[in-house]
Amino acid sequence: MRQCSLLLHAQKILTQDAQRRILEDASLAINDGKIVDIGPRRQLECNWQATRTSDLGNVLILPGLINAHTHAAMTLLRGYADDLPLLQWLEQKIFPREAQLTAELVELFSLLGFAEMLASGTTACLDMYIFEKAVFAAARRAGIRLTAGEGVFGFSSACCACWQDALQYTEELVASTAQESRLKVIVSPHSVYTTDPQILTASLHLAEKLNLPLHLHLSESPQEVAQCQKAHGQSPIAYLSRLGLFSRPTKLAHVVVCSDTDLDILSQAKDTTILHCPGSNMKLASGCARIPLMHQRGLSLALGTDGPASNNQLNMFLEMNRAALLHKLTANDPETMPASTVLDMATLGGARALGHNDLGSLEIGNWADLTALDLSAPNLVPCYEPASHLVYAASGHEVVLTMVEGEILYDHGTFTRFDYESLCREVTKVIASIRKMA
Amino acid sequence: MRQCSLLLHAQKILTQDAQRRILEDASLAINDGKIVDIGPRRQLECNWQATRTSDLGNVLILPGLINAHTHAAMTLLRGYADDLPLLQWLEQKIFPREAQLTAELVELFSLLGFAEMLASGTTACLDMYIFEKAVFAAARRAGIRLTAGEGVFGFSSACCACWQDALQYTEELVASTAQESRLKVIVSPHSVYTTDPQILTASLHLAEKLNLPLHLHLSESPQEVAQCQKAHGQSPIAYLSRLGLFSRPTKLAHVVVCSDTDLDILSQAKDTTILHCPGSNMKLASGCARIPLMHQRGLSLALGTDGPASNNQLNMFLEMNRAALLHKLTANDPETMPASTVLDMATLGGARALGHNDLGSLEIGNWADLTALDLSAPNLVPCYEPASHLVYAASGHEVVLTMVEGEILYDHGTFTRFDYESLCREVTKVIASIRKMA
Repeated sequence: MRQCSLLLHAQKILTQDAQRRILEDASLAINDGKIVDIGPRRQLECNWQATRTSDLGNVLILPGLINAHTHAAMTLLRGYADDLPLLQWLEQKIFPREAQLTAELVELFSLLGFAEMLASGTTACLDMYIFEKAVFAAARRAGIRLTAGEGVFGFSSACCACWQDALQYTEELVASTAQESRLKVIVSPHSVYTTDPQILTASLHLAEKLNLPLHLHLSESPQEVAQCQKAHGQSPIAYLSRLGLFSRPTKLAHVVVCSDTDLDILSQAKDTTILHCPGSNMKLASGCARIPLMHQRGLSLALGTDGPASNNQLNMFLEMNRAALLHKLTANDPETMPASTVLDMATLGGARALGHNDLGSLEIGNWADLTALDLSAPNLVPCYEPASHLVYAASGHEVVLTMVEGEILYDHGTFTRFDYESLCREVTKVIASIRKMA
Repeated sequence: MRQCSLLLHAQKILTQDAQRRILEDASLAINDGKIVDIGPRRQLECNWQATRTSDLGNVLILPGLINAHTHAAMTLLRGYADDLPLLQWLEQKIFPREAQLTAELVELFSLLGFAEMLASGTTACLDMYIFEKAVFAAARRAGIRLTAGEGVFGFSSACCACWQDALQYTEELVASTAQESRLKVIVSPHSVYTTDPQILTASLHLAEKLNLPLHLHLSESPQEVAQCQKAHGQSPIAYLSRLGLFSRPTKLAHVVVCSDTDLDILSQAKDTTILHCPGSNMKLASGCARIPLMHQRGLSLALGTDGPASNNQLNMFLEMNRAALLHKLTANDPETMPASTVLDMATLGGARALGHNDLGSLEIGNWADLTALDLSAPNLVPCYEPASHLVYAASGHEVVLTMVEGEILYDHGTFTRFDYESLCREVTKVIASIRKMA
């Protein structure tokens, strides 16, 4: 018999492997954070001697969901202002608050965001904000997998006085996370409308120098496109292409507005992933991205919640549901975006967005990043088709266990790495003091 | 001091009263199933001597949500077939299964549906299906408030051989529920496309005779409207109006397709409520109802999940979220359908749909139908604006307590009236035997 650290048993395992196999009465053997075997329970019990064995019972194990675009620390501003036009929301409500941010606040509220993610089955995310060192610190406390970058703007942020500082800060992020398998850095010029050609080119050069991908908000609204046309004579996508950004792997959040010409540019780009955020696009009335067409054209697609101030959740089950429902309605076709396609976006697509070919499916050699749903939750009984349940019936509260690199981070309501109650007490204290100042 | 049976304390109470007051550190006094006082905790503690006192701590109490259009027993078919065109879904998947239904199956799977509702804060629903006596039996077992009617069709159902039988069955429902304050009957001709003028007229006459409202599916898809135009030379709404149905209180599910002329007819009707089902309309690609315009025109609006085979959830928090997001996107306006409007639909609007003027808000004299959400759930921390949280941040899993007429039916994961585990075992047995037959 071979040795492993953990043997997990479950009623069902949804693998997301090439055959999209769903195993019944099955097991996973985990060692050094990686999956070393997966298959029928009886077989694994014969072949593996485990330091620890856990029978999760009537659960469905699936690859941990990957939130491919978020701003976790914005839990601070969740529900602070809603039902407003984008500009009024940003300029009168969000920006003034963000100007007062500190590294301490960003760490605290990122940790709160990561708590929500872990409790709803998300094991990894792609984050862009300010004070990203503090976001990495929060990720270390939660144990979540994080790819993140400091937002680079054409104006000062509470963290960086200028864009050069933000790029310098990005280099420091790389140095400070180099030894950690769960943490990765991405160069993050915020968007076309908050930067200029010089900043975007400098970001590109830094990405080339450090061999990193790029992460931007792109073509989120008709207003943004009109403004870019006016300023640069091109669509945001054509403009980025001209500046050469698509020579690097680029992760493009939103891409709500996308002409046929834009689509051709994206199709020809070497390594581009569209980070679709249906909840945010709906709530801010930005529009509906042409995701089904992008899928047909073979573009790489992932799914994100965006920040909790414009969603207002960090829950990938709900985001999958929105993606499926929104595009059926918009396409006037109930066969559009079936459950399997949406689930692929939230798992394998997310793994591609993070540049991880060892995530997104439960296969030998991959990291043991996974979550388990209680199949006896009233909304999951009976279960004919697990993929359908994940997209249409689940809401994330069925999660009983979430694990990254074989380490259990959330277990039946309890976070293993940090004390959630004391986190809440700290949040309450901070909010009270902010209110006092206001 | 006055006597009451229960004194409930909570951090916040969202009243949905005329001023939409939200009380902090507040209490509810309940006696004989009704609210006898509501106000500051200190005041109620001075004024009331309670048989039982419960301090729920850091929760938000709100009126129980009302699911104004559903087919609870369709939990049997949840996830059985998805991502299909409506007709193929109905004719090849749903109808053949429904032809094999029995009263026992309907009771079992309705109870499962009610479990999901209670666990996600829903205290009442408006149901239409077949074997409704069994649905009422399930409601008695769960304790949920139910208004329901036997579906009347122009063809035989597994329960009734003909429409005359279904109307007779409806009369029997009235007799068998007359003494129960939680149960009400509604005459339920299924739709225009499954009936004819004779059936609709007979349904109207029965409603007049028994002094009951009517519940129909109406104008759900462009195909339905085209078919009605062809068969009757009118839109479904104009056709119902001509037949006189709007002389009674009518509860109209969907109303996705609605011309300006139709809207005028609905506006002039005496007592009509539109039962909006955004999740089902999106999933089946039926279209987007003109809810913001109906709201402007002062129509009475409620919210429903539809059946769990076309949603696939019976969760009113998610339905509120969909209603808010869908209409913002469709109207291209983030100010459309603010949280407060949507919350009104799910509470006060639902109460009107059920013909209950003693539900939908927490006020003296109303039934104590309510639910409580744990405000320490990661997705509800911090809490600036409770109504925003209910529509944009909650997903229903934060519910810790649900009560109907002062009786606790769901308490921190446990159903008080029935054994959920044995229900699940029975469901598993039934599904296995159905699979064996198939």
